[in-house]
Amino acid sequence: MKLATFDAGEGPRIGIVTDGGVVDLALVSPRLPATMIALIAAWDEVKDDVAAAAGVAAHHALDKVRLLAPVPRPGKAMAIGLNYADHIAESGQETPKSQLWFAKVPTCINAPYADIEIPRTSNFVDYEAEMVAIVGKGGRNIAKEDAPAAVFGYCCGNDATARDWQFRSPQWTLGKSFDTHGPIGPWIVTADEVGDPHALEIRGLVNGEVRQHSNTRHLVFSVFDQIAELSQAMTLEPGDVIFTGTPGGVGIAMKPPVALKPGDVVRVEIEKLGHIEAKMAAV
Amino acid sequence: MKLATFDAGEGPRIGIVTDGGVVDLALVSPRLPATMIALIAAWDEVKDDVAAAAGVAAHHALDKVRLLAPVPRPGKAMAIGLNYADHIAESGQETPKSQLWFAKVPTCINAPYADIEIPRTSNFVDYEAEMVAIVGKGGRNIAKEDAPAAVFGYCCGNDATARDWQFRSPQWTLGKSFDTHGPIGPWIVTADEVGDPHALEIRGLVNGEVRQHSNTRHLVFSVFDQIAELSQAMTLEPGDVIFTGTPGGVGIAMKPPVALKPGDVVRVEIEKLGHIEAKMAAV
Repeated sequence: MKLATFDAGEGPRIGIVTDGGVVDLALVSPRLPATMIALIAAWDEVKDDVAAAAGVAAHHALDKVRLLAPVPRPGKAMAIGLNYADHIAESGQETPKSQLWFAKVPTCINAPYADIEIPRTSNFVDYEAEMVAIVGKGGRNIAKEDAPAAVFGYCCGNDATARDWQFRSPQWTLGKSFDTHGPIGPWIVTADEVGDPHALEIRGLVNGEVRQHSNTRHLVFSVFDQIAELSQAMTLEPGDVIFTGTPGGVGIAMKPPVALKPGDVVRVEIEKLGHIEAKMAAV
Repeated sequence: MKLATFDAGEGPRIGIVTDGGVVDLALVSPRLPATMIALIAAWDEVKDDVAAAAGVAAHHALDKVRLLAPVPRPGKAMAIGLNYADHIAESGQETPKSQLWFAKVPTCINAPYADIEIPRTSNFVDYEAEMVAIVGKGGRNIAKEDAPAAVFGYCCGNDATARDWQFRSPQWTLGKSFDTHGPIGPWIVTADEVGDPHALEIRGLVNGEVRQHSNTRHLVFSVFDQIAELSQAMTLEPGDVIFTGTPGGVGIAMKPPVALKPGDVVRVEIEKLGHIEAKMAAV
């Protein structure tokens, strides 16, 4: 199933994306949860009703709604660095012995087709195409073998980065957390529909040129390794967002390095998950 | 004014801590906001009503309520590293040229007198006494001279840290974000009542022994520098939490290093702000 947060002119709603368009869950039943986090938290109780709703006639054509981030304001968004061999090589780093985590603060989460800011205070905004996992039931100390059941679904993400800010201190979180620098979407594809998340083609494109191309089978630490590790430290909660790493081909690693410029169009495509696309906008 | 989030047996409420005890704002007027974030967001409209409520008879004795974190689940919590000269020296580091920011994820925020976990997976949990700033109106690109007006108030905080996790990757956020490792409180003292936040004695104690003792005048980057820097990257929102740095005297810098052990009592005291205190608990 494909679950979206959208605005058809009446504020944020959640719905199912079907072949016919978008089914607005609020119009199916006012008793269904009104936000994606609430829907995920209540999933065991409501999933049969939601599945039934996937069969009703769509309320909106897909191109008549504005898609928002499927989880517009997650409780937390964590991101792993240096998690594809080719990206590690282009970064001149060693393969990390331990998972390397930083945060993208919740205010940076952005809609799948919204502009990404190039602020006056940064001279190098870059893209990072990533598969994103959305936490389902969550919990603490989740064993790797239990991790698949802890994932609600997957979507595309762009771990957009102000490189100059990333590297002016040893800690990356600030340079990774600019407003608009965390677009995700276009919707959540539920884990059952994705099947194996470690067998998906992933591409990052700038103005139609393929800059990044890999497959999620090349993740150094799998999604399930990641959930096991993170949940040793912190309780994972419904709707938490996990950026799972980017393959080689980022702009900072080009020779010479190439920053995104105003008007550039950055696209992330992942097999089975669809795509997100943003225009770069000077602010 | 001192503003607390508390539980007197009916779930989280917000109130004013007065000489007589705790005034429950929900009992003063059901029209007042019900959470600290909502109160801060609406402050301009409600502050006169809240100030008037400070004059009514307290509903609860202070020792009959359980104090919660004044902002139990902030939108984000950011923390600055290496921000007192003596802590920089004991860490064997240079004074950073740029502010060094990491995140404490919102799930780590803890009540002012609740236990702090020593998880089985860490062999070195440490304390860091810190003044914490609570964002008021917030915003983006806040100039340093406008930053004082962007702070709602201040409280005590403990930037508790799993040192082994902090240092097993170059990125600190995971080791700084264990559940329970972000106690704050005991309440927010509003900025007008604090006056100059850069003139406050600060102490960290373990089992009654003073381990850290400094004054917030020794901050390398002031609270207002911090707000100016952070808001260049991200929109600061009402109730966001900023850990402003810890002075020298942490356990990892002792010779030999001394980790907290189960049963230890860690206390953070700050002039005008009160104190928080936690028992360390193996989990």
